[in-house]
Amino acid sequence: MHNRLKRLIVEFPRHRNIDALLITDDVNIKYLTGFLAKESWLVVTSQRAFYITDFRYLHEAKEGLKGNVLVKQHTQCLSAALFELVKRQKVKRLGFDEQAISVACLKKLKSFCPRRTRLIATNGLVESLREIKEQGEIDIIRECLKIHAKVLGFLKKVVKVGISERQILLYLEGFIKKYRVRFSFDPIIASGPNSAYPHAQVSDRILKNNEPILIDIGIDIKGYKSDLTRNFFLGKMSPHYIKVLEATKLAQQEAIKLVKPGINVAELDGLARKVLRRFGLAKYFGHSLGHGVGLEIHENPRLSVKSQAFLEAGMIVTVEPGVYIPGQFGVRVEDMVLVTKEGCEVLSGNYD
Amino acid sequence: MHNRLKRLIVEFPRHRNIDALLITDDVNIKYLTGFLAKESWLVVTSQRAFYITDFRYLHEAKEGLKGNVLVKQHTQCLSAALFELVKRQKVKRLGFDEQAISVACLKKLKSFCPRRTRLIATNGLVESLREIKEQGEIDIIRECLKIHAKVLGFLKKVVKVGISERQILLYLEGFIKKYRVRFSFDPIIASGPNSAYPHAQVSDRILKNNEPILIDIGIDIKGYKSDLTRNFFLGKMSPHYIKVLEATKLAQQEAIKLVKPGINVAELDGLARKVLRRFGLAKYFGHSLGHGVGLEIHENPRLSVKSQAFLEAGMIVTVEPGVYIPGQFGVRVEDMVLVTKEGCEVLSGNYD
Repeated sequence: MHNRLKRLIVEFPRHRNIDALLITDDVNIKYLTGFLAKESWLVVTSQRAFYITDFRYLHEAKEGLKGNVLVKQHTQCLSAALFELVKRQKVKRLGFDEQAISVACLKKLKSFCPRRTRLIATNGLVESLREIKEQGEIDIIRECLKIHAKVLGFLKKVVKVGISERQILLYLEGFIKKYRVRFSFDPIIASGPNSAYPHAQVSDRILKNNEPILIDIGIDIKGYKSDLTRNFFLGKMSPHYIKVLEATKLAQQEAIKLVKPGINVAELDGLARKVLRRFGLAKYFGHSLGHGVGLEIHENPRLSVKSQAFLEAGMIVTVEPGVYIPGQFGVRVEDMVLVTKEGCEVLSGNYD
Repeated sequence: MHNRLKRLIVEFPRHRNIDALLITDDVNIKYLTGFLAKESWLVVTSQRAFYITDFRYLHEAKEGLKGNVLVKQHTQCLSAALFELVKRQKVKRLGFDEQAISVACLKKLKSFCPRRTRLIATNGLVESLREIKEQGEIDIIRECLKIHAKVLGFLKKVVKVGISERQILLYLEGFIKKYRVRFSFDPIIASGPNSAYPHAQVSDRILKNNEPILIDIGIDIKGYKSDLTRNFFLGKMSPHYIKVLEATKLAQQEAIKLVKPGINVAELDGLARKVLRRFGLAKYFGHSLGHGVGLEIHENPRLSVKSQAFLEAGMIVTVEPGVYIPGQFGVRVEDMVLVTKEGCEVLSGNYD
């Protein structure tokens, strides 16, 4: 059995004593089995794991899951096949994730669920395993970031007055193709006042002199993601821009200094905000400080005032304060940080 | 107000008399407003529409939704902001879609819902509008298909013995870039025995002589999708392959002949299966006959034995019987068909 499946089963007694878990989220299935799922479910009991799929994915699943997971074919209905299995395996308490199934799906599950089986909400069980990265996962994310170093060097040559945001995107697409990688999300390439939109879409706007350009891209290798933002500037920075840039960098540095196991994420977010407040810029920092990155570009832990989470060694998070002044410009300084036993390592530390 | 929003409101009385509808699905929001949503909700009352979003998307939303929809910013929680709005608009019966919200999300909604407001499940309301395409939508899908004609011409030159599936993918990526379009899904390029996997992933397998290669790709323009499968062959076809190919083509032709308003989709699927049964091939046809295509690659109506739906003029569906013989090869013949008042038009009819 796959190590991650074993780690999952260890958690069963802690989660209202389930004796099997239904996993419906594709990314969680990929995490647990290494196999990319589509319209299929994974069921894990304390003894073994089953993958319920249909004709379309059957052969791929059998090859992809070889040795780890028993593949079961359903012909009509996932729910019906699930509860046949549940009956045969004598599962009495079946865990499921309320975030990963729709209201309609739960209704259907209930309509098939035999009387002696109980459906138990056990939310975030796989997600919490995913928060702590294994060495192999950290290595892949380092690979992603190595491509960033090359991308940044390339951008320095490419970004110039007179070309459009979209042209930069086309160049970037061509550049990363050489490395046979994908973007992990649609790149943000936001020039001048567009940079004041934290999630700006790439436009045909032409880059002008004396303005910033904010570039936020991610690389995907084997499903693992990276996420990095840099601010370029064409021409001469205004004193105002310099102040904002320096304040944002300082907010990031101060927050990163605090990163270590045991720190409350809300405290981290609060500290970055406090630094920006000193410069009168906190009101322009409208999003949270960062997020976990792994098989999803945004995953737990969220570095947010709303979160009660604490950092642990092995987590990889972005630290990305931003200042967005409507109609003028925006600045976001984003790096990826690995929480270590002693403190942290900025994985993208020397990428300028 | 946008025409589609008006059409939506007309449906309110038919759906348990709701006086507002919550729309949480991104594609449905894009359909109704033209604006691509992220982590934001649309609320439509019989008088007006509201878009609840946060700081990150606020400015883009205001520009993108200009004139049609009032943009409201929330700072902490979508559900809290939703029910503030619901109160102010005096909404007593709020519709929502059980397929488009998670169990966790519904719990949260209920915890914020004031006593005098009722949450009413009104499933598939926007999806049913989306089934019938407007002229503008049909035109865009025709544009997608025009690119296919060029892609097919290109493939005829490129597909040859000695190159790998992945190499073909790279060529294709380069080719479509010239037209500034995207793929609507990861292309399927399945050579030899790989073609027996209906959803094969592109591999490094090298194309050999005397074997088929199944290529299933889609083009995306402005969010609208196309979907087309063709079977190439290198060298000399075996009599067995010819029989399977001809049978599959016949199954498609017979099914397409039946396409017109009022026909039951299960009947269509059944007919294609019946044709294949005559050749002893029905057992190798493991998926349903086709699906609607539009802003999503798979949408309603599903041409499936499990569906009770009837075709209507303006629907665009794929008709794609397939025969997959494990260890040997697979064949799928897939075209896109527009249901017209009199019968149908095969949109990709002369694309060989």
